[in-house]
Amino acid sequence: MSTFGTLFRVTTYGESHCASVGAIIDGCPPGLPLVAQDVQTQLSRRRPGQSNLTTPRDEKDLVHLQSGTEHGVTLGTPIGLLVRNEDQRPKDYSETDLYPRPSHADWTYLEKYGIKASSGGGRSSARETIGRVAAGAIAEKYLKLAYGVEIVAFVSSVGKVQLPSAASPSSQASTDDDDTVEDALSPEFVELLKTVTREQVDAQQTRCPHAETSERMTQRIIRAKEANDSIGGTVTCVLRNVPSGLGEPVFDKLEAKLGHAMLSIPATKAFEIGSGFRGTEVPGSKHNDAFEMRADGRMGTRTNWSGGVQGGISNGEDIYFRVGFKSPATISQGQATAQYDGTPGTLAARGRHDPCVVPRAVPIVEAMAALVIMDQVLIQNARKTAASLLPPITTLPPTMVKMGKIPEETKEDKQ
Amino acid sequence: MSTFGTLFRVTTYGESHCASVGAIIDGCPPGLPLVAQDVQTQLSRRRPGQSNLTTPRDEKDLVHLQSGTEHGVTLGTPIGLLVRNEDQRPKDYSETDLYPRPSHADWTYLEKYGIKASSGGGRSSARETIGRVAAGAIAEKYLKLAYGVEIVAFVSSVGKVQLPSAASPSSQASTDDDDTVEDALSPEFVELLKTVTREQVDAQQTRCPHAETSERMTQRIIRAKEANDSIGGTVTCVLRNVPSGLGEPVFDKLEAKLGHAMLSIPATKAFEIGSGFRGTEVPGSKHNDAFEMRADGRMGTRTNWSGGVQGGISNGEDIYFRVGFKSPATISQGQATAQYDGTPGTLAARGRHDPCVVPRAVPIVEAMAALVIMDQVLIQNARKTAASLLPPITTLPPTMVKMGKIPEETKEDKQ
Amino acid sequence: MSTFGTLFRVTTYGESHCASVGAIIDGCPPGLPLVAQDVQTQLSRRRPGQSNLTTPRDEKDLVHLQSGTEHGVTLGTPIGLLVRNEDQRPKDYSETDLYPRPSHADWTYLEKYGIKASSGGGRSSARETIGRVAAGAIAEKYLKLAYGVEIVAFVSSVGKVQLPSAASPSSQASTDDDDTVEDALSPEFVELLKTVTREQVDAQQTRCPHAETSERMTQRIIRAKEANDSIGGTVTCVLRNVPSGLGEPVFDKLEAKLGHAMLSIPATKAFEIGSGFRGTEVPGSKHNDAFEMRADGRMGTRTNWSGGVQGGISNGEDIYFRVGFKSPATISQGQATAQYDGTPGTLAARGRHDPCVVPRAVPIVEAMAALVIMDQVLIQNARKTAASLLPPITTLPPTMVKMGKIPEETKEDKQ
Amino acid sequence: MSTFGTLFRVTTYGESHCASVGAIIDGCPPGLPLVAQDVQTQLSRRRPGQSNLTTPRDEKDLVHLQSGTEHGVTLGTPIGLLVRNEDQRPKDYSETDLYPRPSHADWTYLEKYGIKASSGGGRSSARETIGRVAAGAIAEKYLKLAYGVEIVAFVSSVGKVQLPSAASPSSQASTDDDDTVEDALSPEFVELLKTVTREQVDAQQTRCPHAETSERMTQRIIRAKEANDSIGGTVTCVLRNVPSGLGEPVFDKLEAKLGHAMLSIPATKAFEIGSGFRGTEVPGSKHNDAFEMRADGRMGTRTNWSGGVQGGISNGEDIYFRVGFKSPATISQGQATAQYDGTPGTLAARGRHDPCVVPRAVPIVEAMAALVIMDQVLIQNARKTAASLLPPITTLPPTMVKMGKIPEETKEDKQ
Repeated sequence: MSTFGTLFRVTTYGESHCASVGAIIDGCPPGLPLVAQDVQTQLSRRRPGQSNLTTPRDEKDLVHLQSGTEHGVTLGTPIGLLVRNEDQRPKDYSETDLYPRPSHADWTYLEKYGIKASSGGGRSSARETIGRVAAGAIAEKYLKLAYGVEIVAFVSSVGKVQLPSAASPSSQASTDDDDTVEDALSPEFVELLKTVTREQVDAQQTRCPHAETSERMTQRIIRAKEANDSIGGTVTCVLRNVPSGLGEPVFDKLEAKLGHAMLSIPATKAFEIGSGFRGTEVPGSKHNDAFEMRADGRMGTRTNWSGGVQGGISNGEDIYFRVGFKSPATISQGQATAQYDGTPGTLAARGRHDPCVVPRAVPIVEAMAALVIMDQVLIQNARKTAASLLPPITTLPPTMVKMGKIPEETKEDKQ
Repeated sequence: MSTFGTLFRVTTYGESHCASVGAIIDGCPPGLPLVAQDVQTQLSRRRPGQSNLTTPRDEKDLVHLQSGTEHGVTLGTPIGLLVRNEDQRPKDYSETDLYPRPSHADWTYLEKYGIKASSGGGRSSARETIGRVAAGAIAEKYLKLAYGVEIVAFVSSVGKVQLPSAASPSSQASTDDDDTVEDALSPEFVELLKTVTREQVDAQQTRCPHAETSERMTQRIIRAKEANDSIGGTVTCVLRNVPSGLGEPVFDKLEAKLGHAMLSIPATKAFEIGSGFRGTEVPGSKHNDAFEMRADGRMGTRTNWSGGVQGGISNGEDIYFRVGFKSPATISQGQATAQYDGTPGTLAARGRHDPCVVPRAVPIVEAMAALVIMDQVLIQNARKTAASLLPPITTLPPTMVKMGKIPEETKEDKQ
Repeated sequence: MSTFGTLFRVTTYGESHCASVGAIIDGCPPGLPLVAQDVQTQLSRRRPGQSNLTTPRDEKDLVHLQSGTEHGVTLGTPIGLLVRNEDQRPKDYSETDLYPRPSHADWTYLEKYGIKASSGGGRSSARETIGRVAAGAIAEKYLKLAYGVEIVAFVSSVGKVQLPSAASPSSQASTDDDDTVEDALSPEFVELLKTVTREQVDAQQTRCPHAETSERMTQRIIRAKEANDSIGGTVTCVLRNVPSGLGEPVFDKLEAKLGHAMLSIPATKAFEIGSGFRGTEVPGSKHNDAFEMRADGRMGTRTNWSGGVQGGISNGEDIYFRVGFKSPATISQGQATAQYDGTPGTLAARGRHDPCVVPRAVPIVEAMAALVIMDQVLIQNARKTAASLLPPITTLPPTMVKMGKIPEETKEDKQ
Repeated sequence: MSTFGTLFRVTTYGESHCASVGAIIDGCPPGLPLVAQDVQTQLSRRRPGQSNLTTPRDEKDLVHLQSGTEHGVTLGTPIGLLVRNEDQRPKDYSETDLYPRPSHADWTYLEKYGIKASSGGGRSSARETIGRVAAGAIAEKYLKLAYGVEIVAFVSSVGKVQLPSAASPSSQASTDDDDTVEDALSPEFVELLKTVTREQVDAQQTRCPHAETSERMTQRIIRAKEANDSIGGTVTCVLRNVPSGLGEPVFDKLEAKLGHAMLSIPATKAFEIGSGFRGTEVPGSKHNDAFEMRADGRMGTRTNWSGGVQGGISNGEDIYFRVGFKSPATISQGQATAQYDGTPGTLAARGRHDPCVVPRAVPIVEAMAALVIMDQVLIQNARKTAASLLPPITTLPPTMVKMGKIPEETKEDKQ
């Protein structure tokens, strides 16, 4: 279905060539200052036509808030919003319509529904992500105001061009000797995660915050474009100041929710949190994150190979993860394939297509991350507030309870 | 929460030292032959003590069906089941209880709940997976009987010891030249995916179906064990004969559901489907799966780098994916860390611990995959049956409809 | 939250004075012929200003479909729709705003959110029901095409003016003797349920299909209007040709879902199905619906005091129920009450208000009924199709299985 | 499905003759003192064999907690519990099995599933309610400790024997004149709602807290029993000290959730809240609940015809509602009906059956009420805590905000 979230919930609608695409965001806390521009900023980062690297279509993507706010403040009721489609007519027939595009959704939509939109892509159109980005912008604004949460995503690779040590490959030496953790994530990369800002990211047209790598990525994308081909890449995202205790222990672990969210973005095929696949090669004695008391009196971990999540629950450290986007399926280069009825032939997509989507994917990754955290914050607050209204626990062994501190911390008058 | 699924739904309960662990499986189709042994087989593959590689605890894990069947046939009503815990007393106090285990759930549970089970692990105990495996076994039996679905998972790496070309690393050459797809997945590995059986997997104590690699993995695990250390690894899973059309286009894409399911398994940190992270380095022209008409009159793809899912929807090809498990957090080796109150010290876990969980994780991965597919089959059947009851579509351009065939194919009498 | 349904799902947004009210309908079967007029018809029956009995505001309520259809056929993707608000400015301040309206939502919204829309009503505005009616019209169209389902609601009482024997009161005789079922529901009323049409209902401005009673109701409403007062009433709804087997046995019994749906309509306070409250006074021997074989070879019941639902599951007989609407809270008559800060005073609502909502509630009741049935049809089809793909049950005592007939009846090729 | 609730959630399993019936309660706040006896008390009030009015079967119904607590305190993890069935064998064949019992679930289960439990009733057995009562007892304990909530249900009618003025019938005078509210609910009844205790209820074997009426009810039930017949009745329930702000404005209004919960109890056919059906006959001017400032500085309403809910949201006043239970379908008296294959015949149920279920239904009604309130408390706390972390609203007209007080009231440190 087209709904994401439990207490903070977004539902979207819209195809490429219908009247509009839009969303209903339900469960937004009341009293949040919110105007259209809060949403527009992220929408504009998402839209095509921002540089000569992306598709030259210039979509305006102006958002219209329909409900849920008055005088610039949220009411707690559902926020309806929509962005009009510039081209609202069903697509004209074309000979290319006889072909399901290889690795695209044309064929599977027809298998699923027995009918598909004239544009082929229909609901799988990248325009579908507008609703996500809009909802995520609202969630992000709340999280920033209430908890100081910072969410920054950036491009960590395009094809084989990688940000240094973002996830350096296995040395695959002839020996089976252990890696160290530093083989998985370099100290420079760990430092970048701690400090990178959205401004640094947007300063590069590839949204890779490392100028030299960005330039190589640019060349790689141009090469794909000139060859009427396409290329994939990865996006890394870091979240700072996320409260501890988020995520549900069994089926809804925080990494499971984040993985679900990221793998729901079009063209994604891979997800890893913390040290990820490379961390599986490091023995426990080197991979474990030991505890220490911080200067501010809070416990923390000395390292953070876990990526801020242990046992499926956030521990207050930075959360970071990486998402893999395959090379776009629609290319202008001729491909030997078959028509719907099996007739062999050659398909070359008409028009201009995005040779690489990862720069535009950055705000979408941020949005989906914000949606996951926002929903989990609400769920955990429900539990924490409920527990705070009970009498203090006095009968348990001291190693089982949080030093009797929880009730005091969150104590509030009964509702 | 402790529930997974929409129409086929499992809810679990249980900690390490409570009376029992168990599950309620709701939404099982009526009329499925089902006895305890159907569930026991997979439970026994999951339990510890099966070889000298795993923890020597010998848990019996006998399942008791409570409801939902009569005379060996499901009634369509919820199936309650439970497995008794051998040791049902809260754990005695120990000095190690003063320490939250690094990279374990002790600390985050206390942050989340303000209270935790005496055993520390509590709900994060591996015993929690019993309910998943039991539910998955039921789903798998249905899928096999109704669709001939085959699900086989196996160990594809332990530490740096990899099944040849399971996911060979980036060459990271000085050039930014393209990889070919064969760099990502070798022809041998593609062939293995098509043919590997559960019997071949279980023939090796590591559950890696390649004898030579299995022997190297065994040595790697023994080395970790002897060092009182631990090591991670990856599990690859393939599903054959899955019907096309499964998965919901936007937030519940099939890879998103599979990723969610896999990342909810304890100790998982990474997931990739099809060519995964490595596929992001291959240009679209080489990565796209072209269509062809098969001898049996069905359309298929010549290659399958997509892993059986396009646009979030299954296309009828084999589905395969890889899951990364970090090195187990609990090790007997001394670790410099801090107590709950911040006092620095050294923690060495008491008792024997599993140095590597991936061999035991194989049936858990299969179970979670079965749960996802089963739920999506039910959801898609609801849609397909509903569409089949409508009059044929005659007013649409022919490229928009499945050749008018859907209504005939699934035609049935009105309910 | 603002979402209703599991597989057929509507999510709504909108307050009185925001830009628009709208809805997203998700899960509509693909291939359903659908144009705006299908929805507009029911919306127009809902809107005010239809007769001199209702509020004289003339809202246009033109629906704009945004997505989910092409060339007049549904695609299976979410259907976005909206109706613009004529007056889109926040309401100007008024002295009456100092008062929470008695028995209205002003006070409780402020308790819930700490903030409320300028119009007071905000989300509790009757305009919120537009999304329900639109979604219900789509569900109803499907149910009619696929199953021939007929849904007709009508006004059965206004104040104390009742359709004869719609639910005649307890005789409350001095004796405790039993009632007969006919005391609860008269033969004339039972006959009306079998035959009443939407045309007969709309022929009367009160939507009570009994001319003489309708005239008395009209007088009652005019009396309330002239007194600046208001009056409540009841709506009865009947559904014909609903397939058997709908409803989930335990928490989601069909009457529970219907009750939930009806009691979510603004101003409703009571619900009863079949013989309802009055049926509790009739002994089982008289109240039970005995079985008989019908001429068409189908089993049915000779009477239908159950209202078409037994054990929470539809039995194929007509489903009928009654919904109670309280007298509207907003009246122009002065009321002694208190301001938000407790200051006593007299509140007289400004403007014209609907003295009786039941005539306009008729299409809303029909819509909510359609939504419940549609969702349950999809859920039951998922189960039934799944069961049909299993081998026939041959090992059970014959009294436990449906004569081995289910598999044949619904047999279809594997997906 | 067999799950109820969003954040506080119960899932049940079990038929009449399987190994056990049980439930998983998920989402219970951590730190709640809980032992088996807390649950057992309500289970024992539910079970048969408590007086000569109910079925003489003596079920022991001992509850076994499986998980979720240690040392008598909840951990916040799922609470598994079960009650063994005394008779665990599938029922032997009997000639009565050839007949679907009139107005029972035999026929509809077979229509739904194509297969049914040997006992006929299967999942529709009254034993299914054990899980509800257990879960409700846990919710109730929390609500009492955290908010002082009191929940008391009682029998308000058996057949035509009514507690005086519980819901006196319409006078149905020849005139259409208005009723007063007192015609709907007498002052004595209003007083009873404010004061009635569970002890007063249990002092009468009918659980009607009015001795004289209870005696008449007893005679009525004995009359049904002697005639091998059955009789229905109603249960009224009142909840005191429920916090304001509970219930979601549109589809999940508090009365909709309560109605859903009550109509999911076996044999229920009717629900009304506050003045209910009778209130529809009273004009707004008399029915509205005017506000007043209470001595304790809190706003309240002078009357409470709304039943504590306005606009779907609790207002802090007592919540009360009435539930109608039909006469039990299973009677020993011969009934002319038809076998599954249509053969006409006479069915007389074997064994002893409960002639009237309402006395035993009292704890079930209380349990379902507790489940609804508990879930809504958690959901509203999530919202309220989230809002409390935002900066105070200073830009809105004063009539739109709760006097700027919400932020202060619920202010707490950031998580």
